[in-house]
Amino acid sequence: MSNRIGVPKGMRDFSPEVMAKRNYIFDTIKETFQLYGFEQIETPTMESRDTLTGKYGEEGDRLIFNVLNSGDYLKKIDDKTLSARKLNLITPLITEKALRYDLTVPFARYVVQHQNEIVFPFRRYQIQPVWRADRPQRGRYREFYQCDVDIIGSNSLLNEVEFIKIFDEVLNNLGLNDFTIKINNRKVLSGIAEIIGRSDKIVDITVAIDKLEKIGKEKVNEELLQKGLSEKEIEQIQPLFELEGDNKVVLENLKEYLKTSEVGLEGIKELETICQYISNWSLKKAKFEIDVTLARGLDYYTGAIFEVVSNEVEMGSICGGGRYADLTGVFGLADMPGVGVSFGADRIFDVMEELELFPKKLSQSTQLLFVNFGKKEELYVLPLLQKARENGIRAEVYPEAAKVKRQLKYANQKNIPYVLMVGEEEMKTGQLSLRNMKTGEQEKVDFNKLIERIA
Amino acid sequence: MSNRIGVPKGMRDFSPEVMAKRNYIFDTIKETFQLYGFEQIETPTMESRDTLTGKYGEEGDRLIFNVLNSGDYLKKIDDKTLSARKLNLITPLITEKALRYDLTVPFARYVVQHQNEIVFPFRRYQIQPVWRADRPQRGRYREFYQCDVDIIGSNSLLNEVEFIKIFDEVLNNLGLNDFTIKINNRKVLSGIAEIIGRSDKIVDITVAIDKLEKIGKEKVNEELLQKGLSEKEIEQIQPLFELEGDNKVVLENLKEYLKTSEVGLEGIKELETICQYISNWSLKKAKFEIDVTLARGLDYYTGAIFEVVSNEVEMGSICGGGRYADLTGVFGLADMPGVGVSFGADRIFDVMEELELFPKKLSQSTQLLFVNFGKKEELYVLPLLQKARENGIRAEVYPEAAKVKRQLKYANQKNIPYVLMVGEEEMKTGQLSLRNMKTGEQEKVDFNKLIERIA
Repeated sequence: MSNRIGVPKGMRDFSPEVMAKRNYIFDTIKETFQLYGFEQIETPTMESRDTLTGKYGEEGDRLIFNVLNSGDYLKKIDDKTLSARKLNLITPLITEKALRYDLTVPFARYVVQHQNEIVFPFRRYQIQPVWRADRPQRGRYREFYQCDVDIIGSNSLLNEVEFIKIFDEVLNNLGLNDFTIKINNRKVLSGIAEIIGRSDKIVDITVAIDKLEKIGKEKVNEELLQKGLSEKEIEQIQPLFELEGDNKVVLENLKEYLKTSEVGLEGIKELETICQYISNWSLKKAKFEIDVTLARGLDYYTGAIFEVVSNEVEMGSICGGGRYADLTGVFGLADMPGVGVSFGADRIFDVMEELELFPKKLSQSTQLLFVNFGKKEELYVLPLLQKARENGIRAEVYPEAAKVKRQLKYANQKNIPYVLMVGEEEMKTGQLSLRNMKTGEQEKVDFNKLIERIA
Repeated sequence: MSNRIGVPKGMRDFSPEVMAKRNYIFDTIKETFQLYGFEQIETPTMESRDTLTGKYGEEGDRLIFNVLNSGDYLKKIDDKTLSARKLNLITPLITEKALRYDLTVPFARYVVQHQNEIVFPFRRYQIQPVWRADRPQRGRYREFYQCDVDIIGSNSLLNEVEFIKIFDEVLNNLGLNDFTIKINNRKVLSGIAEIIGRSDKIVDITVAIDKLEKIGKEKVNEELLQKGLSEKEIEQIQPLFELEGDNKVVLENLKEYLKTSEVGLEGIKELETICQYISNWSLKKAKFEIDVTLARGLDYYTGAIFEVVSNEVEMGSICGGGRYADLTGVFGLADMPGVGVSFGADRIFDVMEELELFPKKLSQSTQLLFVNFGKKEELYVLPLLQKARENGIRAEVYPEAAKVKRQLKYANQKNIPYVLMVGEEEMKTGQLSLRNMKTGEQEKVDFNKLIERIA
């Protein structure tokens, strides 16, 4: 075998067994999205480079995969630029297209481009792979699926509530028993920065306190000091690390803390409204928790921020999202607020594997194998095969009259639960020999009984 | 709006309406594949360039999209090569990865790489997009889905029969009423070249006679002459253009024609065996026809060749495929014969649109809209919304207490068939006002009746 056989690093083949599990996750997610009135769209794998660059920060731009132009891709570059190897000048001339880096920017582009066909508020979902030239590591791939769902064109907080319900519903349907939906509000974070008089440091403050759970209070304070906050300012932040009790208590304490910040109190009010809805409308499995240290990519979020973690498996967040005031402005369409969340299919997969939550039946594809005894038997068996399929049974006939032992081995390896043997005698009597591959038991059945057994 | 808004040429956005139709096709195809015992795999979007280049001919290589290396992609190129602009030297150094061009080569790579985990005969299907830098035109895109299904690791002609059944089954399930599965055999084509003593011209001969239906007998003969066949040799081919009658008659005439060609007679025998199976095992809708002028990409096919055409819409072939003796040899694994076919989702889509075969219900996403009359009503309505969803009804509440007219317009535009209005009176009596958006009729219902109406 040649050394070249393999996939590029960070890429994956999905075998039938893994595909069945992945499809189970995607199908469950889709089904819930649809029950909630969301419609699917897809955008192309390649976008114009201009559409993507400048949207993900400098680091993000570096991680975008560019597609080389076809034909004589050097023709637009003069000798001087080429020999000077000025990549920042050369790259835009030799690549006009790039691979989708996330689903958010293509969605924003889609909304602007199709604004006259879209019915707003637009409830859309999108499940497609994205590509990032990140350094591959355990659980981080260069090609992975995102499952995004958004309601755009509405300021209503009911939409936030819908997504909290969706988190609960999807993860419950997947069999997760213990997980927490954390919520915060970007306005609360702004309020905190305002209260301590350092609105100029909002990014540093939120980035630091976001790490509280991971690195602990002392390290967070060190980082804040390093970023230029005074001892006194850091002291003022400490009460936030001590917030305890249920959401109602937390909100009361926060309200007291933020009492002189208009934007902070606005954030509190939004959180209160959402909590009120949720308390009226019970969740199936999720714990629901206000976490003032939750910051999450601040780039475009302006209101609620969400994150979901499993309490049974250590894994980081398995879902996330938030509200944005202006996703489409960069493409020329203002005043288009919305809220959206994303399910991390790869992490959910890992959690489910660890908790053994995938239904056993997923490992079965074919349910019934017809053993092949030769030409005469084939002709007898083929109409039965067709009838089995018409009864919704996933069935196949072994394509050759190989040794029975080999055919049974095939059934075993493919995890096929039932094997039907039709030889001379069975053809005479119409009583077919059905073997249960798990128990090894064999019984004579007619066709109707066969269907009954397997269905 | 900026000029930049748009997708690269040959690429497409899929709106909810189109997605629903596309999913209907894909779901129908998948369901059938699964009933026939096929398992799904996926391979990555990017393959190593080495895996793809040299597999599709010179023209194919030019149509592969290459992905620019990350980082300082020029560093491996010396000044001399760079300034000489030698693309054939530069391209392999600046791009290590390329986008999947079809599903066949990645499948072959997958089989070789995973040969020790795979249970043979391996029945796999794969439904993923592929990319070609072709000139875009009506019905030809630079990103499009292929739906491939193969049985690899078996010489049995029963596999050919399975695919004939699958063509019939899938297209019947999609609602097509009149279509023809054409079959030929590569060995028959070799036999013809042998009979006229021009085995050296097999490619030219098959390429020419493949055009019979499109350009007619005279033009085919002109082309044969141009390609260097003598008048006498062309004369010898003419009987093939006159073959008429049912498959049995055609086979008899062919057998006579090919009686001195061993390989030709082998092809005939294979066709006979397949016909015998098919006559024992009825097709639902498909016409099944031996077409000796069918050639279809000869690159790797070695036995049966298939093509399916609609008899109601002029569209070229909507499915195709064939048998190969050696798909994996190029990756170092010999003796791995198989047969596979592919469904052209885009063409099937167009045929179904023209024949109006998509079920009307596909244009509905949400089935029930709860009108929003304000905070008090919201709190009453939210548990009902949840119960409706738990009963499998795709439902949503309008997120704001906008004017009823506006909310009804939203329902109309989204093609939502039922709207529920719950105001003061309804909350008092528990009798809810349900409006049928098609008829405009309104009735009072309790919750159970509501579910019944919609389900």
